[in-house]
Amino acid sequence: MPPSQKQMKLGAFLMKSGHHVAAWRHPNAREDAGVSFQHYADLARTAERAKLDLLFISDSNAVRGPGLGSIRHTWRTDFFEPFTLVAALSSITSRIGLVVTASTTFNEPFHIARKFASLDHLSEGRAGWNLVTSSNPAEALNFSGEDLPLHADRYERAHEFADVVRGLWDSWEEDAFVRDKETGSYVDPEKMHVLDHRGKHFKVLGPLTVARPPQGHPVIFQAGSSDAGKELAAATADVVFTAQQSLPDAQAFYADVKGRLGKYGRSPDDVKIMPGVFPIVGRSAQEAQEKFEELQALILPEVGIGQLWDILGGLDLSRYPVDGPVPRDVAETNNNKSRQKMMLDLAYRENMTIRQLYQHAAGGGGHWRVVGTATQIADQLEERFSKQAADGFNILPATLPGEFNDFVDLVIPELQRRGLFRTEYEGQTLRDNLGLAKQTHLPRAAGAA
Amino acid sequence: MPPSQKQMKLGAFLMKSGHHVAAWRHPNAREDAGVSFQHYADLARTAERAKLDLLFISDSNAVRGPGLGSIRHTWRTDFFEPFTLVAALSSITSRIGLVVTASTTFNEPFHIARKFASLDHLSEGRAGWNLVTSSNPAEALNFSGEDLPLHADRYERAHEFADVVRGLWDSWEEDAFVRDKETGSYVDPEKMHVLDHRGKHFKVLGPLTVARPPQGHPVIFQAGSSDAGKELAAATADVVFTAQQSLPDAQAFYADVKGRLGKYGRSPDDVKIMPGVFPIVGRSAQEAQEKFEELQALILPEVGIGQLWDILGGLDLSRYPVDGPVPRDVAETNNNKSRQKMMLDLAYRENMTIRQLYQHAAGGGGHWRVVGTATQIADQLEERFSKQAADGFNILPATLPGEFNDFVDLVIPELQRRGLFRTEYEGQTLRDNLGLAKQTHLPRAAGAA
Repeated sequence: MPPSQKQMKLGAFLMKSGHHVAAWRHPNAREDAGVSFQHYADLARTAERAKLDLLFISDSNAVRGPGLGSIRHTWRTDFFEPFTLVAALSSITSRIGLVVTASTTFNEPFHIARKFASLDHLSEGRAGWNLVTSSNPAEALNFSGEDLPLHADRYERAHEFADVVRGLWDSWEEDAFVRDKETGSYVDPEKMHVLDHRGKHFKVLGPLTVARPPQGHPVIFQAGSSDAGKELAAATADVVFTAQQSLPDAQAFYADVKGRLGKYGRSPDDVKIMPGVFPIVGRSAQEAQEKFEELQALILPEVGIGQLWDILGGLDLSRYPVDGPVPRDVAETNNNKSRQKMMLDLAYRENMTIRQLYQHAAGGGGHWRVVGTATQIADQLEERFSKQAADGFNILPATLPGEFNDFVDLVIPELQRRGLFRTEYEGQTLRDNLGLAKQTHLPRAAGAA
Repeated sequence: MPPSQKQMKLGAFLMKSGHHVAAWRHPNAREDAGVSFQHYADLARTAERAKLDLLFISDSNAVRGPGLGSIRHTWRTDFFEPFTLVAALSSITSRIGLVVTASTTFNEPFHIARKFASLDHLSEGRAGWNLVTSSNPAEALNFSGEDLPLHADRYERAHEFADVVRGLWDSWEEDAFVRDKETGSYVDPEKMHVLDHRGKHFKVLGPLTVARPPQGHPVIFQAGSSDAGKELAAATADVVFTAQQSLPDAQAFYADVKGRLGKYGRSPDDVKIMPGVFPIVGRSAQEAQEKFEELQALILPEVGIGQLWDILGGLDLSRYPVDGPVPRDVAETNNNKSRQKMMLDLAYRENMTIRQLYQHAAGGGGHWRVVGTATQIADQLEERFSKQAADGFNILPATLPGEFNDFVDLVIPELQRRGLFRTEYEGQTLRDNLGLAKQTHLPRAAGAA
């Protein structure tokens, strides 16, 4: 490969026994995947062996599903608190990025700034924060609330939250801790910057209780794809994770987000766009299709409808006939607007039944599904990468470890052969490997931008 | 040793370069101890090799010190968020307990319940929560507050917080997750218990998103020694950490806490009392004394007064002459009442100057200091253990790793020779090793106590 060829970034989105909603019923699935450290440790080592950029772990502050009535079939009930999990993974890995979700809706910025700064030190510069607003109304009920704040209010709070966290990461310059044993000077006070933030949602004095993170700032991921989400990403994110089905949609999203950067003084390379991809790889196209159908056949209707409830932001389709059409009179809810619209548009355009829609959704929860041989999958990834639809991909394996191992063993070597993916890590930190500059900007209080 | 001989429990309280306020200036100290994972990893492995029951890590949600004026000499500025740290330690240790502080004043019970349940799974039953209320007014300023809530209000919130956390740990019975691949039943709904807590401070629905912890409930530590603190401990704690200087004081405290258990339906063995001890061990008594004096000579007055500010709950002595008497007209503050009273009583009784008081306090931050040979130290620990003043001790090494290694290499073998300390772990979980029963009580909603 030409040494200067641009290469794609790849993440592994880990979730229990896999992203297919029936993955846990697969004969090879590990029953206790949600609370087995060994399961995640094995996956992390595999991902690092494959030179992937990062592990990505989502979160929910409530048991998922349409109310608790159908709890019997709900597999998203028992899982590690993801930050705790990635902290534990940090000490058994050495190069792979550790990106984990934390909500700005039900957390305090001081806690989040501390935790990610600490993880960045523990991992020697491999921490990433997937900054989200909570879209599951059930979460509010676990935090003394009755319902979620309105969509716009959540994003307003998220903007301010991100400002506070980044300001706290700037509390100390890199060389603030002189630790001079002779004189007893531990800190150079001129290199401390007290944030003293006073905003609408937060008042935070600072400084942070952690030295400046090795990356300057841990990498910020953002996954909202609504207009407010794209604006938040343009203002704050280093990487955007998004669900895009078609090439034109992915290209439009890519151009849209990159086009918003200028007004924040940022260049297109400052933000990497990594859509999700849900691959099923086989030695032959037929084998891949059979593997997919084997999983599809394991979906119970209750579960499929429950997953739609989740993807559609709390839209309850359980009172409609499962083999009837997706109803047209459903109101827009407060939550997760962009994915709801994309899924409903698809259902109406293709006259889908509810069963067809949930079967479609189950294949990656609304993400782009690619089923085929390694060559076919590499072709499709290469097309989107080369046609300005993606800077890389966040891989959602259908089953874990099964489909993930197959992707690593079959697709990664093909991408490497084409020069589209690294064969060795470029650097120590997640920023190094993603091609993002270390955050060196001085605090605002010091007068520099 | 007789196989049935009662043995003491021992914890290692890890803090940066050590508990002596000048530890970081010691020639052997590691400069970056606060943000070095290797430092803590080495200490954890040493503690596990010594068969200690647990690591104990404190927390502060703000930079310490009397305001930020004297920041130059303040060494408690840069340190890992401790929960993140112990999660990282969980995957490189296998038997030692992991006890970490989290405040009930500036956290949400749902987060805390999730995190400790997750840590308990990750570590296979080694998690402990040191339940505190925040006593540093600076913390409020990082969480959109102006000052701490009143002492009584903090304890009221702490009681309710503990109830919610324990209720959330009871969300799922141990066998609630049937994960029957054949039928698609993941959960047995009858074994789910939705908390639905509606109290003065919190409304929390539940259930928790984590399976029942391996220990039933992670071990709860409590460190407040005021009357409200002792009552909270009697109601909720498995282990009490406390600062007790003299044998009679320690015996009185021990009897007091054990005597409060009956009204909560608990027996004296249900709660272990582990006072802090700050040991300096030498091959000779003279060597020990010299090691101590070497450290004392490294204390800068600014630092000693800053530490008093901390120990005395925000009492600022910097405007008095350092070689003059500790003033008598200082008001009782809102914070940390019991330690303030103990330290001031001592200063008045012995007519101490401010310098003498801070030098005294520096030797263990108000904890019991023992300086001598391994035999002398073992004698003193044995006396308190055998005279119903302690069920064990939380060791505060003056320097880390220096004094900790000496304690492990010199004092532990002496305690083992006397049959006072284990030579092998009794079980897998922290509860096993502490001699505490697994928490098997059914949720209140299920009708059982």
